[in-house]
Amino acid sequence: MHFPKNLLCAAMLAACSSLAHAAGPLPIADSKHPGDPGEGSYPVPYKMPAVAEITASLERIRGYLDSVTPTRVVHKQGGAAITDMATPVADAIVEPSKGDFGIMVYEMGVVHAGLLRARAVTGDARFTAMTERHLTFLNDALPYFRAQEQRFKLDRANSFARMLKPQSLDDAGSMCAAMIRARFAGIGPDLSAQIAVCGAWVSTGQARLKDGTLARNRPQDWSLWADDMYMGVPALAELGHMTGQRKYFDDAVGNVLRMSHYMFNPQLNLYTHGWNANNPDAPQFYWGRANGWAVLAMSDLLDVLPKSHPGYPKVLAQLRTSLRGIAQYQSGEGLWHQMLDRNDSYLETSASAIFVYTFAHAINQGWISPATYGSIAQAGWNALSARINERGQVEGTCVGTTFASDQVYYYHRPTSVDALHGYGPTLLAGAEMIKLIGNPALTIESKLRTFHYRPNSAARPKSE
Amino acid sequence: MHFPKNLLCAAMLAACSSLAHAAGPLPIADSKHPGDPGEGSYPVPYKMPAVAEITASLERIRGYLDSVTPTRVVHKQGGAAITDMATPVADAIVEPSKGDFGIMVYEMGVVHAGLLRARAVTGDARFTAMTERHLTFLNDALPYFRAQEQRFKLDRANSFARMLKPQSLDDAGSMCAAMIRARFAGIGPDLSAQIAVCGAWVSTGQARLKDGTLARNRPQDWSLWADDMYMGVPALAELGHMTGQRKYFDDAVGNVLRMSHYMFNPQLNLYTHGWNANNPDAPQFYWGRANGWAVLAMSDLLDVLPKSHPGYPKVLAQLRTSLRGIAQYQSGEGLWHQMLDRNDSYLETSASAIFVYTFAHAINQGWISPATYGSIAQAGWNALSARINERGQVEGTCVGTTFASDQVYYYHRPTSVDALHGYGPTLLAGAEMIKLIGNPALTIESKLRTFHYRPNSAARPKSE
Amino acid sequence: MHFPKNLLCAAMLAACSSLAHAAGPLPIADSKHPGDPGEGSYPVPYKMPAVAEITASLERIRGYLDSVTPTRVVHKQGGAAITDMATPVADAIVEPSKGDFGIMVYEMGVVHAGLLRARAVTGDARFTAMTERHLTFLNDALPYFRAQEQRFKLDRANSFARMLKPQSLDDAGSMCAAMIRARFAGIGPDLSAQIAVCGAWVSTGQARLKDGTLARNRPQDWSLWADDMYMGVPALAELGHMTGQRKYFDDAVGNVLRMSHYMFNPQLNLYTHGWNANNPDAPQFYWGRANGWAVLAMSDLLDVLPKSHPGYPKVLAQLRTSLRGIAQYQSGEGLWHQMLDRNDSYLETSASAIFVYTFAHAINQGWISPATYGSIAQAGWNALSARINERGQVEGTCVGTTFASDQVYYYHRPTSVDALHGYGPTLLAGAEMIKLIGNPALTIESKLRTFHYRPNSAARPKSE
Repeated sequence: MHFPKNLLCAAMLAACSSLAHAAGPLPIADSKHPGDPGEGSYPVPYKMPAVAEITASLERIRGYLDSVTPTRVVHKQGGAAITDMATPVADAIVEPSKGDFGIMVYEMGVVHAGLLRARAVTGDARFTAMTERHLTFLNDALPYFRAQEQRFKLDRANSFARMLKPQSLDDAGSMCAAMIRARFAGIGPDLSAQIAVCGAWVSTGQARLKDGTLARNRPQDWSLWADDMYMGVPALAELGHMTGQRKYFDDAVGNVLRMSHYMFNPQLNLYTHGWNANNPDAPQFYWGRANGWAVLAMSDLLDVLPKSHPGYPKVLAQLRTSLRGIAQYQSGEGLWHQMLDRNDSYLETSASAIFVYTFAHAINQGWISPATYGSIAQAGWNALSARINERGQVEGTCVGTTFASDQVYYYHRPTSVDALHGYGPTLLAGAEMIKLIGNPALTIESKLRTFHYRPNSAARPKSE
Repeated sequence: MHFPKNLLCAAMLAACSSLAHAAGPLPIADSKHPGDPGEGSYPVPYKMPAVAEITASLERIRGYLDSVTPTRVVHKQGGAAITDMATPVADAIVEPSKGDFGIMVYEMGVVHAGLLRARAVTGDARFTAMTERHLTFLNDALPYFRAQEQRFKLDRANSFARMLKPQSLDDAGSMCAAMIRARFAGIGPDLSAQIAVCGAWVSTGQARLKDGTLARNRPQDWSLWADDMYMGVPALAELGHMTGQRKYFDDAVGNVLRMSHYMFNPQLNLYTHGWNANNPDAPQFYWGRANGWAVLAMSDLLDVLPKSHPGYPKVLAQLRTSLRGIAQYQSGEGLWHQMLDRNDSYLETSASAIFVYTFAHAINQGWISPATYGSIAQAGWNALSARINERGQVEGTCVGTTFASDQVYYYHRPTSVDALHGYGPTLLAGAEMIKLIGNPALTIESKLRTFHYRPNSAARPKSE
Repeated sequence: MHFPKNLLCAAMLAACSSLAHAAGPLPIADSKHPGDPGEGSYPVPYKMPAVAEITASLERIRGYLDSVTPTRVVHKQGGAAITDMATPVADAIVEPSKGDFGIMVYEMGVVHAGLLRARAVTGDARFTAMTERHLTFLNDALPYFRAQEQRFKLDRANSFARMLKPQSLDDAGSMCAAMIRARFAGIGPDLSAQIAVCGAWVSTGQARLKDGTLARNRPQDWSLWADDMYMGVPALAELGHMTGQRKYFDDAVGNVLRMSHYMFNPQLNLYTHGWNANNPDAPQFYWGRANGWAVLAMSDLLDVLPKSHPGYPKVLAQLRTSLRGIAQYQSGEGLWHQMLDRNDSYLETSASAIFVYTFAHAINQGWISPATYGSIAQAGWNALSARINERGQVEGTCVGTTFASDQVYYYHRPTSVDALHGYGPTLLAGAEMIKLIGNPALTIESKLRTFHYRPNSAARPKSE
């Protein structure tokens, strides 16, 4: 008998190690017959989550993020604080995060989305206090770093480079959307000027295919990344939302549909990570997080796209089909695998969190059936919540990952609590689960040891 | 490197534990070169099963079932026997089984099917002695419990409730078919009146979709369960068989075809567990046993459906396609997984047993090719036989399972020797394997360390 | 929680045992930040292979093969050398190999292909010295064994039986192609007479379906084996190459296309191991090595088929589609599984080696995109190279495997360093990787912890 040796060796060494709450076989949570062997046991809680527990988890995450994202200007050498904001010095930088969490990176844009949603659902202003602190600092420090740039020409070494002169969708789109959302929520200062800078990059700066699809010259000319649905579309959508100009909505819808044309596999209902003009008929890599960005982008777009826009039903149909595909691949533990179609790749947190959010949100918005997707979202959240540790760190998130062309690379991307990609989605997921549990349009039944999310206005019986 | 942690922890703890005969790497059984490294080793026997071994296994199961299915009327409190069958008392019940095996449940109908087949194949009347004992008791005790019901109005608390007033397909169909089969075999008393009661429920009592498909209001209005092909179709088929009335055959055929329309995935050639009117385009759950019920229902129907019935070729085609799909998913150990398309879900006994029976029976009936399916049935039986322990218990059967909507539920349904679902199918499988091994239409060759089931009248060579 | 018990028990026992260089988690080879947790770790090297390392691996294999393939005539009893080549004796045999490596078997034909390619790429004549030694011996000893046959009528017990009177494609095709290739390379004696014997068997001796497809009566009349694409097509192609007669190319092309018609699954883009006239709609078994033989046969054919032949674009299209399918199934460790679509079957060496060779060769020939397949070939080679041990043995190769009809058989075929099937493909793979790394038409970039094979004349940017 033969086995992938290293796989198993590594598995045995790694298996009993580090993940947070994964405490071994658990009984079903609401067991009425705890001694009954028919009850079964579960690797993660199998229950209807309690709002208080979710809220506490979100609060822990917020607390951790708050504690590791300083908003001060310091000397690069030595780290001493700079208080004279009138005279720029060459080695001034934004104080680095212990968790390596940049305050201007695209992942932080998702964090703000999560914090805004958590506040909206819980009413607890502590969530958005962090957003307010970050945005206020960005606004206040911008003139200082602009002056530094003019004087010292640091270019990309300027720690405000992303804001001063965005050069990629990663630099611009997610934070742009976050700033507009904060503006709608009345959080933080007036960032109109900065919104104009990042919005211009997304809508006119970034390279595109001739058909208008947002493109990259990485890793080879010309590539499309499914990730770029999120890096571009929500910003375009929010620009439309803010300005009322239809061109932004048209561009957002067009990118969703064209990117889906290039990268969506209609047999599996999954997105491949990327597409390369050199060989469009390449093997496909169903990387979890890329699928996450794709569905999150569509969901964000539908949140603000006027229902009368001709693209609305098309985007909704594409979102539904994508969620159908993703649901089909949920693991027996509730999370999703790093490579969605590969059950020997690890269970990955950030993709799972985006999926939980999007399932819950799409149910709450009435886009998909609670009967079908409610327990999928619940099972996903239960497993996801076990990855939030006592310190408020989110464990098991794949680090930054490029568009590659072999499975060995994707399977072995490490996970880290320092991968910020998992934090925003987990905040979003928890907040939306609170809303789902309290959703007045449905009733959650615990019956025969499983859960049924029943729409209150069910389709009329078809029985005679 | 990252792995589903709890999965592996649990695996390592569980791995060397409890299953019956699974005694580690085994050489090929008929090895002519036992020292030759080319021989390989197997987790279960890899051999042509011996009739004597199969018969002994069936006898052990029968003995165990016989010993744990008392047929007495007792007081619920205290358990003392009731001998006065003239005066009903309120707390009279059928004596409970130590194995929790009801004598009126649908799973027991499958046991009787297995016992009848074992007797037919072996000629050993001990197999049907148990059927005779059960049916005689049901017949004798029925007036007593009817009187009890009239007097005390116990409704579903009456331990004869299923027979007095069936209210679901589970209450009626499988036992109804068993009673008719026993009648044809001349086993037990005349149960015409009871056959009329359960037959009426299946043919006219159960809720249906407007198109006539047998339906349920569980878990949500309106649902179809692939299981209901078995809960309904064999009873309808046997009613046709017994009465000669075509309406029953029409209904049986119609249900097979319509249920297949709703629940059969023609890409994978598998049935999804259920279908819900609230969202017909839901993710699918290819639960093993539900696929078992579907193919067993079709096989049972074809056993009695006149070949001249216009539905015959359609049902046969659907059965062939389904068996093709199921065969494609056989595991490397010979059994099938709880979720047929998920090799990280456990290997489940009852589904595997139904499949082994149906493959062997379909070969014996000439419905499918021995060249293709003979060794699949054999490999299945070899693995299945290792799950029959010394006491005659059948191990590794998934307990009762509702139509759910998340994989976490399905993956973690526990297994139990008290799940009666595995017993009837294993009896059926063993009996049909005995017939297959002795089938005069084929020759079993052991060659180059594998097995070939060769039809004796092979297709003419196409070579020049 | 339940698991395939024996599978895991065996896995745990076997897991830390024997494979060559598999030394546990390794950092990415060209790490610029070895302490960075974002680097990840790999079960096999993840790097651009060094030409010197590949060459050393090939040299070790050659040395081992040379040492275990004696070319002497000896007495079967006792093993004493026979020097009198004028008077045949009944018990004269070719001295057996310690590694059980026949010098006339089809696997040795692949070894010669690998040695010829290694010499062509490295210029090192030691590689073909072994080919020369073997072929010279075959030529010299042939008259002796022909005389032995005439005198003693040993039939298949004559150790030269394969050459004296081939009776199967295995006896004839691969060695026939090897002899013609050696002839083109100017290696060894003039084997025209022997080429005529084996060539006649392939082109006119072997049984065929009425449509001309090369067939077998094993395991049942009539069967096709995907393996036979290799056992037949390269010999036919080289006969065309040598003689210039179009009939051989027509036959080679026809067999590729018809075998693909019967055995290629266009949904999965994989070949099933075999096809049986008794039941063409059987479950399919995507055995790795059979897929290897299929793509190697097409690649060998395209190497010599005139581009003007009407079959050229069809064979090229079929090869491309097949490689697309195979690439989609590469494991997270770089090798491929014994059953390509089953990630719980073991990682198999010989199939993986054929795939690595064919990907690399097809890139070098300009048949497929380096951007897509370069890193797949590289990841495959890295894992494959870890299976070449210090003695020059190739580990992890599935032993001889018949066309069977159950997964239990395929999953449990043992692996052995004595399975010659792995050696020729590994020589081919290494040689072609050397060529790929030095291919002037592409640039290999190491960027963001992965590798990109960039065509030097990239498609024009489609960006505005």
